Amino acid sequence: MAGKKNFKVAVIGAGMTDFGELFHQSYDDMIVEAYRNCLKSVDKGIDEGDIQAAWLSTVQGSLIRRELISGSSLAEPLGLLSIPVTRIENLCASGSDAIRNAACAVMAGIYETVLVVGAEKMRDVPSRASLVANRGIMSHLWWHPRGATAPMVFGQNGTAHMHAYGTTREHFAKVAVKNHRHGVMNPHAFYRVEITVEQVLRAPMVSWPLGLYDCCPTTDGAAALILTTPERARQYTDKPVFLIGTGLGVDVAHSHLRSTYTEWPATIRAGQEAYDMAGVKSRDIDVAELHDCFTCTELITYEDLGFCEKGRGGMWIDSGGPCFGGEKPCNVSGGLKAKGHPVGATGVAQACEIFEQLRGEAGQRQVSGARLGLTHNIGGAGQLSCVNIYSNQ
Amino acid sequence: MAGKKNFKVAVIGAGMTDFGELFHQSYDDMIVEAYRNCLKSVDKGIDEGDIQAAWLSTVQGSLIRRELISGSSLAEPLGLLSIPVTRIENLCASGSDAIRNAACAVMAGIYETVLVVGAEKMRDVPSRASLVANRGIMSHLWWHPRGATAPMVFGQNGTAHMHAYGTTREHFAKVAVKNHRHGVMNPHAFYRVEITVEQVLRAPMVSWPLGLYDCCPTTDGAAALILTTPERARQYTDKPVFLIGTGLGVDVAHSHLRSTYTEWPATIRAGQEAYDMAGVKSRDIDVAELHDCFTCTELITYEDLGFCEKGRGGMWIDSGGPCFGGEKPCNVSGGLKAKGHPVGATGVAQACEIFEQLRGEAGQRQVSGARLGLTHNIGGAGQLSCVNIYSNQ
Repeated sequence: MAGKKNFKVAVIGAGMTDFGELFHQSYDDMIVEAYRNCLKSVDKGIDEGDIQAAWLSTVQGSLIRRELISGSSLAEPLGLLSIPVTRIENLCASGSDAIRNAACAVMAGIYETVLVVGAEKMRDVPSRASLVANRGIMSHLWWHPRGATAPMVFGQNGTAHMHAYGTTREHFAKVAVKNHRHGVMNPHAFYRVEITVEQVLRAPMVSWPLGLYDCCPTTDGAAALILTTPERARQYTDKPVFLIGTGLGVDVAHSHLRSTYTEWPATIRAGQEAYDMAGVKSRDIDVAELHDCFTCTELITYEDLGFCEKGRGGMWIDSGGPCFGGEKPCNVSGGLKAKGHPVGATGVAQACEIFEQLRGEAGQRQVSGARLGLTHNIGGAGQLSCVNIYSNQ
Repeated sequence: MAGKKNFKVAVIGAGMTDFGELFHQSYDDMIVEAYRNCLKSVDKGIDEGDIQAAWLSTVQGSLIRRELISGSSLAEPLGLLSIPVTRIENLCASGSDAIRNAACAVMAGIYETVLVVGAEKMRDVPSRASLVANRGIMSHLWWHPRGATAPMVFGQNGTAHMHAYGTTREHFAKVAVKNHRHGVMNPHAFYRVEITVEQVLRAPMVSWPLGLYDCCPTTDGAAALILTTPERARQYTDKPVFLIGTGLGVDVAHSHLRSTYTEWPATIRAGQEAYDMAGVKSRDIDVAELHDCFTCTELITYEDLGFCEKGRGGMWIDSGGPCFGGEKPCNVSGGLKAKGHPVGATGVAQACEIFEQLRGEAGQRQVSGARLGLTHNIGGAGQLSCVNIYSNQ
């Protein structure tokens, strides 16, 4: 019923900051740098006055830093005070959902050219208040004193998958090894160092079956994207990329209320909506950026998105399928694991990677002949999942 | 450049909870009640399965209660787990901006029938942590220890308007008196009691020139709206209302950085965008719901939206222009002042009032012959302003 078959919005520019510990940059500084890099990527140039509306994705501002982040937090540092700016806050899926809402406004014909920015400043708070420890956010909620931090919640799924399908910690570790290897090729990545399966397995345990190297880092960073109509796109570039499908799946917040621990129904729903809208199948995808907040998340997502059969995630990584040079490279950017996970920026940065891949501009990490790309972005404990599909045609 | 002339999205249902101190209801309870009232208002009936996507507007969840409010916070209590739900958080303008984003998705043809819900549970925190005192939100920010609470920030504009145009505290008081008189007619209003100008002037001073009765109350409440295409609307009702224009204005967050204290540039921009999109002028508006977080805010907004000439707000209320039975009744619902201001719900509840007015179903407080209605919803200290225009044709 829902979903438009001829959904098509052009991406004409994409830019980001380096991801990492950006103590030398303020929140505003990061936004300005991502925006400038985005403007620079528009090869035929763009007049800033062409931007008619914007969407900002930020999560932690309210939750941890308790600031009044809103549309003006984007408009002010960029001097874009004459245009509307909506703030989307849908947990870690905010960035992809901001792109989804911005694309709807372009498809509606309300605005022609629009900006999406995601930004998060996470390293300025002590690690006890980080999203991983969750103390800053959830310390008063009933499940936190019982140990339900993010690694514990996602680790449950990993454990269930091991039990149901014989998946091993080595399988999860291979996701980390792969993404670190990819991250070495990405100048924007937080960690540009290879690690071994042995190192992952010997790292301190955080929450079974996830050791320290199975977890993505707390990260600062920002990313920006400019969308427009396919018609207008040719004015700005000869190499537009097109968003051709978008899906957002929702589920109950608490995993103990779900019927399954071995998949994320929100991801399955988001994938179906996006594939249907784009008119493509999972097998058509050439390159994907997946939400590897933890190694087990990426492995289970292979199955949820149909990249491999149910229960075969471990075998698929054994085969090298999601590796650079493999059947369907996943997280060539390094993913959340090595590139970093500044939550509100993550979904937008995934789109930046796919933009470069589909234009053939990803340099050393270019996936040869990539035509169709997918981004997958989870929010909360898997209660939100946003899938966007891009094409270069 | 921006703005589509043939913008038209139908509203087929609108419902809300009573606004007030809802200690007997949880956040989920309020959402369920507003949603059920909304479904009931669809006169030819609606199958819940027709709803293809939703938007949730909530502000305080993250800022004060520090909870992980997201799309699942709406989907879960309503059992709507098979559809996407975006959360919009654009300060007190979130409700109207959620309607704006939902309407774009309908105009884009991505979804046909969609739900918008705004909800806020504000009375469960002690008043020192309220939005008025701001201690829960901004206690660590540089401007808070210097006294920059909401009444102080908006009071600056009142003071500047008094100085520039000879406006008096009596003028502001008349806004409170009017809205309390209107509120008596609204069964959903928090305060259903008349007050006098004398009572307003003698009330304890909060921040010059705003006394206690110049300030809206901290409130619990929820409101819901169902949007669809004009074509599909006839299946659900013979009396649809249409959203025909929407504008969102943005400004710098701190008023000392603005060029003026006697108007809100964000409101002026939002009004222009909405009027242009709707193809109407301010003089065409029959009934309006304005953001009277403080009495001076409503009075200055008369001018920002062109309901009277610049500087004549005081004279206009003296003339009875914005009163029920007057030239252009404003806040017939009681407004934020008497109906209440559960921040995330406010913009959606404004739309509920206009929906009833344009259908001729507002009972005792019906504005005779109302055809065009406007809602105005400020965020922060005036750095955001969203204006939506509705027609019954």
